[in-house]
Amino acid sequence: MLQELFTPSVQHWLDLVGIFVFAISGALLAVRKNFDVFGIAVLAEVTALGGGLFRDLIIGAVPPSAFTDLGYFVTPLVAAALVFFLHPEVERTQVAVNIFDAAGLGLFCVTGTVKAYDYGLGLTASAALGLATAVGGGVLRDIIANEVPSLVRWDRDLYAVPAMVGSTIIVVAIHFDALSAFTSGAAVVTAFVLRLLAMRFHWRAPRAWHRRSSATELPEETP
Amino acid sequence: MLQELFTPSVQHWLDLVGIFVFAISGALLAVRKNFDVFGIAVLAEVTALGGGLFRDLIIGAVPPSAFTDLGYFVTPLVAAALVFFLHPEVERTQVAVNIFDAAGLGLFCVTGTVKAYDYGLGLTASAALGLATAVGGGVLRDIIANEVPSLVRWDRDLYAVPAMVGSTIIVVAIHFDALSAFTSGAAVVTAFVLRLLAMRFHWRAPRAWHRRSSATELPEETP
Amino acid sequence: MLQELFTPSVQHWLDLVGIFVFAISGALLAVRKNFDVFGIAVLAEVTALGGGLFRDLIIGAVPPSAFTDLGYFVTPLVAAALVFFLHPEVERTQVAVNIFDAAGLGLFCVTGTVKAYDYGLGLTASAALGLATAVGGGVLRDIIANEVPSLVRWDRDLYAVPAMVGSTIIVVAIHFDALSAFTSGAAVVTAFVLRLLAMRFHWRAPRAWHRRSSATELPEETP
Repeated sequence: MLQELFTPSVQHWLDLVGIFVFAISGALLAVRKNFDVFGIAVLAEVTALGGGLFRDLIIGAVPPSAFTDLGYFVTPLVAAALVFFLHPEVERTQVAVNIFDAAGLGLFCVTGTVKAYDYGLGLTASAALGLATAVGGGVLRDIIANEVPSLVRWDRDLYAVPAMVGSTIIVVAIHFDALSAFTSGAAVVTAFVLRLLAMRFHWRAPRAWHRRSSATELPEETP
Repeated sequence: MLQELFTPSVQHWLDLVGIFVFAISGALLAVRKNFDVFGIAVLAEVTALGGGLFRDLIIGAVPPSAFTDLGYFVTPLVAAALVFFLHPEVERTQVAVNIFDAAGLGLFCVTGTVKAYDYGLGLTASAALGLATAVGGGVLRDIIANEVPSLVRWDRDLYAVPAMVGSTIIVVAIHFDALSAFTSGAAVVTAFVLRLLAMRFHWRAPRAWHRRSSATELPEETP
Repeated sequence: MLQELFTPSVQHWLDLVGIFVFAISGALLAVRKNFDVFGIAVLAEVTALGGGLFRDLIIGAVPPSAFTDLGYFVTPLVAAALVFFLHPEVERTQVAVNIFDAAGLGLFCVTGTVKAYDYGLGLTASAALGLATAVGGGVLRDIIANEVPSLVRWDRDLYAVPAMVGSTIIVVAIHFDALSAFTSGAAVVTAFVLRLLAMRFHWRAPRAWHRRSSATELPEETP
């Protein structure tokens, strides 16, 4: 049923674009971390394919598309080569990482949710796995770079919420039998724009009550 | 055969309890690490479901129960919400993390071993996978929190041994055809109590001979 | 077809040797990091079995051989015990870690590529998975030891390239129907020797252009 509304080739094309932009984000972080050319390629591959690999292992789609579709494997290498030879000055890097990452986030939460549902998961589980597909590569990237994943840091702008919104739009569309290229595209753009807004206006998630309150009180105590 | 002695509903209930207490431990660590609300939820999910997810991927039980049973997915969120709103003062946190963690350790080494054996693994492999189920979530939790897993640190009280004992009791019971709610419960309690005792009396594992001896000699050299 | 040229027992024996030497490397790192005896065993198991486990999950060979063949599970424990009781003085450790690691790298890139091809992956994907098999355990080892994986660090001698060469020799041999104990052995030795030469002469991979040039200019600016 899904295949009719949302053709495999569109799914494939969206996947490749998501892989490319995530790979750019991973490769740029590798440059900032001063990794060598293989480190750049590894971080590009891991960031781009990690989330989808996790999804495919979970739903039992083995071997995962990352190892059966040559395009999935080669795309991150192209991105890594681009970054290796043409990467912008270091001070501009962080902004570029963030924008590409936001695009990948929007694309992957949608394609991840659709593929999970195609493999028979329930709506909630599909949305959860779509979210994991979207954030998984970035978490692996940060683990390999030996940093606390920005996903869980309180001093980073909202990251999971935009992907949750995107995944939720998709499962609601599936529930009402309204999944199409249009609703999918709307979900991608919504997640992407929400993430950009979160970065622009520094939307942040609260920490646990006690912690936050003591942190708020701290300045008042100091004088 | 196992199903008759050890009903699926008991297995399911023990799993949910183990998931809940591990999730509490993960969420409390997230509070201590100052993560935001999503970081708390992520660390609760990873700590609670990581070990079982690894087990299910290894035995080929895909999609893993974490993604087919809504209760497995929602329970960590409930634990995260509890911790978020009601978590105790920070100074009490470490003790609570440890006690909940010990309970999860005991429950998971038992349910992990039983499920691995149900899926056809040998007794040794079942015990090893039960151990991995019990400690896997905690290792993932520490990796995401960017700390050296307490599992491998020499300055932490015995952690793996209680789970090994619990898993061993189960495989011995299976071998002698004596697996029941009683023997399972005994294994859970034994592992839990051993872990509490290890923490109470600071039982520690030795380091490699050379290291340890030079560390012992150090104080004598200083005067 | 492969089975005739490259008997299962040879594959099994090479796997066990690779597992042993990787386990030695992991255990020695654990000693250097001051882990306790369980940390040594865990790091030996993870380093030795991590790459093969990843490969088996990807190709759908579940349960992975690490959990069905008792020898795969016990070998790292033997290596860990050897290191625990007999490990050399700490200052000699790094050299030993590196040589054992190089031997494991050569063996695993070959056996990983062959097994991936046996399970129906294409030539490129087989070579990539062979590479992942060879470097995966080491990356997991470094992640658990909470270090930036030496695989991606620019200040480490070439590591991925020798494994790539070994994997490539194998897929070329498969392509020309010339896979045999001889060509396999040649691939292992080539990768091993290349890695030793890379360490001996400090062959390194370049970093991204901009970074590298500014680093090169730095010394000239200082006087």
